[in-house]
Amino acid sequence: MQDVPFTYKMEEMMRQLPTGAFLTVQADGERNTMTIGWAQIGIVWGRHVLTVLVRDSRHTFGIIEKAADFTVSVPWQDMKKELTFCGTRSGRDFDKFHELGLKTASGKVTKSPVLQLAGLHYECRIVYKSALNPSLLHDDLFNVYPKKDFHTLYYGEIVACYETE
Amino acid sequence: MQDVPFTYKMEEMMRQLPTGAFLTVQADGERNTMTIGWAQIGIVWGRHVLTVLVRDSRHTFGIIEKAADFTVSVPWQDMKKELTFCGTRSGRDFDKFHELGLKTASGKVTKSPVLQLAGLHYECRIVYKSALNPSLLHDDLFNVYPKKDFHTLYYGEIVACYETE
Repeated sequence: MQDVPFTYKMEEMMRQLPTGAFLTVQADGERNTMTIGWAQIGIVWGRHVLTVLVRDSRHTFGIIEKAADFTVSVPWQDMKKELTFCGTRSGRDFDKFHELGLKTASGKVTKSPVLQLAGLHYECRIVYKSALNPSLLHDDLFNVYPKKDFHTLYYGEIVACYETE
Repeated sequence: MQDVPFTYKMEEMMRQLPTGAFLTVQADGERNTMTIGWAQIGIVWGRHVLTVLVRDSRHTFGIIEKAADFTVSVPWQDMKKELTFCGTRSGRDFDKFHELGLKTASGKVTKSPVLQLAGLHYECRIVYKSALNPSLLHDDLFNVYPKKDFHTLYYGEIVACYETE
């Protein structure tokens, strides 16, 4: 698992994203993985940064708030079942790893583990976060928040990036 | 200038970014272009979003704060002279367009114009903004702000994306 540039297969990654990727977090002995369909990637503060969003109603929110890092795994294989489960069920009710037989590998750099799947993996160290301020959001996007469970944005410096088969 | 998917040449765009791209903004009859080396691109709120950062000390800041949109032009040709000028001189002191002979075209969708150069262009409608909260920034990144002139992040929904020669 040799590291690749953070630009590696970026277009494929972005095309897969709406179908789903996995955000995996571990802190204080707790861990969870959830499906994400949104993310931003680029260069900020002179670093390679991947930003993910987590609603404060999510089980993952309680973990990532205590975490120093997260990982994102973008599957190349068909994982519709796992993506649907991890996008609709809560880690409060299920050990998703056990339930789905999802195996994890230790992060090369992060404490958060990485899902063992054929895909592209980003290990990210949290360098900034920002709770969404709804008063600054364009009216057109308010339909995203009918329950007012807003997102917090976590900016992760990409400290390792690699592909597994 | 047919529109292309927002993923088009994303890897090349990201590799060019540290060398520089142009952020162009117009509002209330004022316009400016500045060099950027940072940006994030991805999917947020179910939209294709390009995020740029502007320090509040910048001339562009006063304009973008009043603007509904911005454009980003990523040059494929060598524009070292223009990028250096637009990254070191202020629109307070120079009409950069006149000074450098930079021609603009009307945005297809945005009021902000687009630079006429061989490259990739994003027209972006501002849908969210967020002033950087330094208390949430990792200590490692504080060297970016010796003068405490923090950035505001502008999240632009990509409403047009195309390449010109």
